[in-house]
Amino acid sequence: MNRALNFNAGPAALPEAVLAEAEKNWLNFNHSGMAVMELSHRSKEYETIHEQAILLLRDLLSIPDSYEILFLQGGASLQFSMVPMNLLTEGKAGNYILTGVWAEKALKEAEKVGETFISASSKTQQYKSIPTVNAKTSENAAYLHITSNNTIYGTQWQHFPANEGIPLVADMSSDLLSRKLTIENFDLIYAGAQKNLGPSGVTVVIIQKELLSRSSNHLPTMLNYNTYATHNSLYNTPPTLAIYLLKLVLEWAKELGGLTVIEKRNEEKAKILYDAIDCSEGFYLGHAEKESRSKMNVTFNLPDEEIARSFLHQAKKEGFIGLNGHRSVGGCRASIYNAMPVEHVFQLAAFMKKFRRYN
Amino acid sequence: MNRALNFNAGPAALPEAVLAEAEKNWLNFNHSGMAVMELSHRSKEYETIHEQAILLLRDLLSIPDSYEILFLQGGASLQFSMVPMNLLTEGKAGNYILTGVWAEKALKEAEKVGETFISASSKTQQYKSIPTVNAKTSENAAYLHITSNNTIYGTQWQHFPANEGIPLVADMSSDLLSRKLTIENFDLIYAGAQKNLGPSGVTVVIIQKELLSRSSNHLPTMLNYNTYATHNSLYNTPPTLAIYLLKLVLEWAKELGGLTVIEKRNEEKAKILYDAIDCSEGFYLGHAEKESRSKMNVTFNLPDEEIARSFLHQAKKEGFIGLNGHRSVGGCRASIYNAMPVEHVFQLAAFMKKFRRYN
Repeated sequence: MNRALNFNAGPAALPEAVLAEAEKNWLNFNHSGMAVMELSHRSKEYETIHEQAILLLRDLLSIPDSYEILFLQGGASLQFSMVPMNLLTEGKAGNYILTGVWAEKALKEAEKVGETFISASSKTQQYKSIPTVNAKTSENAAYLHITSNNTIYGTQWQHFPANEGIPLVADMSSDLLSRKLTIENFDLIYAGAQKNLGPSGVTVVIIQKELLSRSSNHLPTMLNYNTYATHNSLYNTPPTLAIYLLKLVLEWAKELGGLTVIEKRNEEKAKILYDAIDCSEGFYLGHAEKESRSKMNVTFNLPDEEIARSFLHQAKKEGFIGLNGHRSVGGCRASIYNAMPVEHVFQLAAFMKKFRRYN
Repeated sequence: MNRALNFNAGPAALPEAVLAEAEKNWLNFNHSGMAVMELSHRSKEYETIHEQAILLLRDLLSIPDSYEILFLQGGASLQFSMVPMNLLTEGKAGNYILTGVWAEKALKEAEKVGETFISASSKTQQYKSIPTVNAKTSENAAYLHITSNNTIYGTQWQHFPANEGIPLVADMSSDLLSRKLTIENFDLIYAGAQKNLGPSGVTVVIIQKELLSRSSNHLPTMLNYNTYATHNSLYNTPPTLAIYLLKLVLEWAKELGGLTVIEKRNEEKAKILYDAIDCSEGFYLGHAEKESRSKMNVTFNLPDEEIARSFLHQAKKEGFIGLNGHRSVGGCRASIYNAMPVEHVFQLAAFMKKFRRYN
C-alpha cells in the first residue's frame, strides 16, 4: 500500500492502522451483519463504541470526573457561537486573546452575543508569536478564550495562562491529543476532530461540570451544552461513524504509548523540519518566532515568490500533498499531526535540502 | 456476505452496493493514496465529490435553479431551531401542524424564538392520522411547518397542503428521496441523512433562494442559511466522509431508475406488510389510520402485551433487527427505507404469518 505524503492542514492524514481496522469491520461490524453506520444509535453495539470513545478520551487526557466529555457537530466554528451563548452571561464580557484568524472569528461570534474584551493580540506582528506576557483581563470577565495552536501562522501556546478565577476556554482543534495537558487548568476545551482525532464531522467538548449551570433554558436545545451532558451526547442521532473512527484513533494513540510518547514523537518530527529551516542559511525562513513555533504546523517561506512557486511545484511532482501555505499568508506549510509518520517528515526534510542545493 | 435483516428506524440499512463501493476506495480513493476523509476539503478530489452530490440531488429530485441545496450538520433537531431563527421575523408567527413528537419538538424550539400558531393537530387521536382537512393558518404566518413522515406513529402525508402565499417548510428526514416530489410546492425542505440518504452526520437543506433574504446578519454565522448558500456549504470543514457516502447513495438511487422506480418499490414493500396486517383477522393491528399509512415505517400491535413481547423475542431470535416500537408508543415497527431489500420484507411477512399461526 503506497500511502500519500499527506501534509494537509485538515482534514489530514489518519493512522494507517486505523483505516485498516475500519476496513476490516466495514461490511460486518462485530459479526452483526451491519456496517457501523447501520447500527441504531440506541443499540448495545453502538453504545459500547460511544462509551469506549468517552473512556479513552478520559484515560488518555487524564480528564477528572468533574468534567463532562461531549460529542457535538458543526466543528469549532459552531463552538465560536456556543461558547458565548452558554457562558457569556448578562453584565459580563467574553475575553479573547487574538493569535490569528480563528481567534478573530471566535471573537466576532461573541460580539453578536454580548460584551467582549481583547485581552491581548499579536495581530500587528502578523501573528508571528503568542502574546503571553501582556494579557490583561477585564474586571467583568466571563471567561478568557485562547486558541492553543494556530494552523495558519504555525504558532502554538507553550505555557498556558493561569486561570485565576476566570474560566479558561481553549480552542484546541489543531493540537488536542498531540501533547500532555493538565486539564484542570482549563474550564472548557473544544476541538473539531479532523486534525488529530478523526474525520471531520464530530467535535469534542470537555467542560467543567460547574460551568454547565450558566446555560440558560431559553437556549435552542441543540446549542445548550446541558442537552449533551444530560443525554450523554445521545439526545438526537450523533454522527455514529465519525465517533467510531474517533474511537479507533484513540485506541491507536493508547497503543502507541499515550500522550508521553506522542508528544515526544511530535517534538522529534517538528525538530526535523525546523532544523532543515534553521540550517538553510536563510534559504528557508520560518514564519513564526522561534519561541512560539508550532509542533503541528511548520510554516516557512523562500527567498522570493518565484522560488516558492518552484518549490511547491517540484514538491507536488515528487508526491508531497498540501504544502501550500494558507491563502491568507502564502508561502509553505507542512502540517504534521499525530498520524504523520516520522519517515514522511524525513522525506520532506531531504527534499528541502535537495531543492536548496539546486536553487 | 450475510446481511442482517435490518428494520432499524434510523440510522438504518444502507444499500449493499454503496458499502461495497466505499470499501473498494477506502484506503486509496481515486489512486490518491488517501482515504476520502484524508482529502483536504479544498482539494479538487473532494470538491468533485461535493459538487456531484449536489448535482445528483438536483437531478433526482428535479430541484429548480431557484433553490439552493445546502449541507449542514446537527441533524433535523438543529433545523428545528434554524428554521425559526432564519424565517420567523418580527411580528410574524411560525405555523405548525402537529403530527407527532418530532413536530412537537420543532414547535417547542420555535416558541423559544418567537410567536407560534398551531394550524392543526392530531394529538388527541394519538397521532394516528394526518390532519389534512382542518388546517388553518394565522393571518401573520411566517411559514407553515409540517413533518412529511412520522416515524414513531407510522403516518405520512399523502397530499401536501397548497402553499398559497405562505412558505411551506417540511421536515422530510424520514422520506426525502423515497417518492416523487414537486419541489416547487415547498419553500424549505430539510432532512437528516440517516434514513434514506446516507449515514448520520449530514443534513440536507433545500431552500427557495428568495427566502434567504429573511435571515438577519446578527445570526451566528453557522446558524445562518446564507453562510452555506454563499460558500457552497464549504465555509468551514464539512463532514466530508458523510457527504461522500451520501453521493454514493444518490448514484445508487439514480442507477436504480430514480424516484419513479424507488417510489414503486417502496409501495410494493409497504403493501406486503400492510397486507400481512390486514389479512390477519385482527391479530395484527395497524397503529395508523389506513389513509395516513406510512410507506417508510409500518407500525402495528398484537392482541396483548405478552404476545407482543413474545413476537419481538421470537423475531429477534430469527435475526430481525429493530422491530421494537418507539418507547413512547410501544408495540412493533418495521422501518423499510429505500435500502431495505424486498426479500427482507417478504421474510418479515412470512414470519408474521408463521407467528400468527402458532399463537
